Amino acid sequence: MGWESNVRRVIPYTPGEQPQQSGIIKLNTNENPYPPSPAVIQTLREFDSASLRLYPDPEAKILVNALAETYGVKSSQVFVGVGSDDVLSIAFMTFFNGNKPVLFPDVTYSFYDVWAEVHRIPYRVVPLTEDFRINADDYRQVNGGIIFPNPNAPTGVMETLALIEEVIKANPDSVVIIDEAYIDFGGMSCLSLLPKYDNLLVVQTFSKSRSLAGMRIGFAIGSEKLIQYMNDVKFSVNSYTMTNLSCLCGAAALRDADYFRTTVQKIIVTREAAKQRLTELGFTFPDSYSNFIFASHPDKEASLLFEELKKRKIYVRYWNKPRIDQSLRITIGTPEQMEALYAALAEILKK
Amino acid sequence: MGWESNVRRVIPYTPGEQPQQSGIIKLNTNENPYPPSPAVIQTLREFDSASLRLYPDPEAKILVNALAETYGVKSSQVFVGVGSDDVLSIAFMTFFNGNKPVLFPDVTYSFYDVWAEVHRIPYRVVPLTEDFRINADDYRQVNGGIIFPNPNAPTGVMETLALIEEVIKANPDSVVIIDEAYIDFGGMSCLSLLPKYDNLLVVQTFSKSRSLAGMRIGFAIGSEKLIQYMNDVKFSVNSYTMTNLSCLCGAAALRDADYFRTTVQKIIVTREAAKQRLTELGFTFPDSYSNFIFASHPDKEASLLFEELKKRKIYVRYWNKPRIDQSLRITIGTPEQMEALYAALAEILKK
Repeated sequence: MGWESNVRRVIPYTPGEQPQQSGIIKLNTNENPYPPSPAVIQTLREFDSASLRLYPDPEAKILVNALAETYGVKSSQVFVGVGSDDVLSIAFMTFFNGNKPVLFPDVTYSFYDVWAEVHRIPYRVVPLTEDFRINADDYRQVNGGIIFPNPNAPTGVMETLALIEEVIKANPDSVVIIDEAYIDFGGMSCLSLLPKYDNLLVVQTFSKSRSLAGMRIGFAIGSEKLIQYMNDVKFSVNSYTMTNLSCLCGAAALRDADYFRTTVQKIIVTREAAKQRLTELGFTFPDSYSNFIFASHPDKEASLLFEELKKRKIYVRYWNKPRIDQSLRITIGTPEQMEALYAALAEILKK
Repeated sequence: MGWESNVRRVIPYTPGEQPQQSGIIKLNTNENPYPPSPAVIQTLREFDSASLRLYPDPEAKILVNALAETYGVKSSQVFVGVGSDDVLSIAFMTFFNGNKPVLFPDVTYSFYDVWAEVHRIPYRVVPLTEDFRINADDYRQVNGGIIFPNPNAPTGVMETLALIEEVIKANPDSVVIIDEAYIDFGGMSCLSLLPKYDNLLVVQTFSKSRSLAGMRIGFAIGSEKLIQYMNDVKFSVNSYTMTNLSCLCGAAALRDADYFRTTVQKIIVTREAAKQRLTELGFTFPDSYSNFIFASHPDKEASLLFEELKKRKIYVRYWNKPRIDQSLRITIGTPEQMEALYAALAEILKK
């Protein structure tokens, strides 16, 4: 049909499976194994449901102000969105609007090239070193923007603040986005660099460390200028994205700092134990500072391990892609879930 | 700074005010004056809040299936989004991707030109007739797509199915989007034309007739081909936009058809009474089939009426734009709210 010639054709991102049946040990999408803070649950219970007839606050002030207070910045430095994917998509649209290629690593969050494609942004992937590290010198080339996660996904590798600052310093004419989805699990945030660089945007999420993947809350912190440009684009796409309920729940999660620290600490302890146990099973992996481990085994194909685990109702994440097709990304679950994983792996490896 | 040369600069849409103080009679953003169905409120109460740690179903199947059943179409013909603004923005991105101008009326939903600008889509506005009607012949010109609301906003004017079919028939090489945000208030939906035209997309929302503006639910129904293309773009922007909670609440609202019919009928009765009362006060307006009336007064500037009403804590909508700067868009509230409006207008007009 003629109308199809005007269609934007794209190959979409494939999210991890969200199986609806019960009894599955779900270690495939980096969710938090612990429920959200009791303060969130109480907020949900007390919500004035009759108010749903009204549009929410388009500026999401309750959440923006709570984030500003938590991170010690001005409210005008905070942008919120429907998960960090929404925030990142808006950031791509807003800041990567030139003709020069945007740079990001070859092994990284697999949504970056999809956003570049859908928003018609030229890009160039920059190979990581053999041990999945960033070489700052590789980012001294002509570009229209830079983005990478820290810790990186799906590797879990953490880069130093010094390296990140080197990249930012070398690129005053580009916006540099550091995607800190996993920063709370032991990494060092580059929020401290913000006062020095007005071209740095830091993106984080409530989906992992704050157990609110189902509420869809992400945010960015940057200079007032960056945030104003993002809001202009956001208000040109959809004015009312954040519900009042999600803003209230997000603010409640921020207030309960004790719960946040406790659950994050539990996950870190389980992760460190997992490094030991997976090593004993013969796995190797880059050292992870996130809530997952990117592990490969010298004796077994990762795709086989993936399928065998699935048969045993344990879901992990596998990509059939260059450089990473021999690894599994295993989310850190509860200690009990991890025991089930080790037992299943031991059984599979024996065969 | 150098990085600013890569920024996408846009003039954003300005949503109606959402005042946070109480005691305001809010007739400015076409919200439903009645709360959502008790079935929605119960769904919210019974929601398993611990499940918020998990990502939602990216396909939003609960809501998609409920919509398919309600409207008698296949699930593969239904697209859902974060309000109809999200749905429309994705539709602009997906279907208006050519070099020919997209057509829409000069007096219409003021987000259309904003989406065209932000997504870099060429467009041409087509003047409505003097009495704010569409002339089908005006849409017999080269174009890369067509969109208009029916009933139109902010006029409330309803076009016939015959006129809409004439426009679709004349444009087999364009996607034609009919934005039916206000269709439930007495209009005739063009969903019945879907079996004949695979280039017709019908967009509706839960924000008006289903009292769920605060939950952010919009949807589109069209041919399987159209919906597949939209989903490809949607999954290239943000995989998880709909929360499970909003899907469950939306499905509950659809199930409670009695409540829906009763509240819509109450609003229609209040609207018809309002036509009488506003006429008695000297106002004129196009006949409205929506939940608002677009009224002007021969003796008073609309901007003055707007300000005077605001002083009395009654908010209506006013645009200082060509052709519509002598009119107020007044949302139909409860009978009590409308009495307060008439009293205030009588007082202002006496001065």
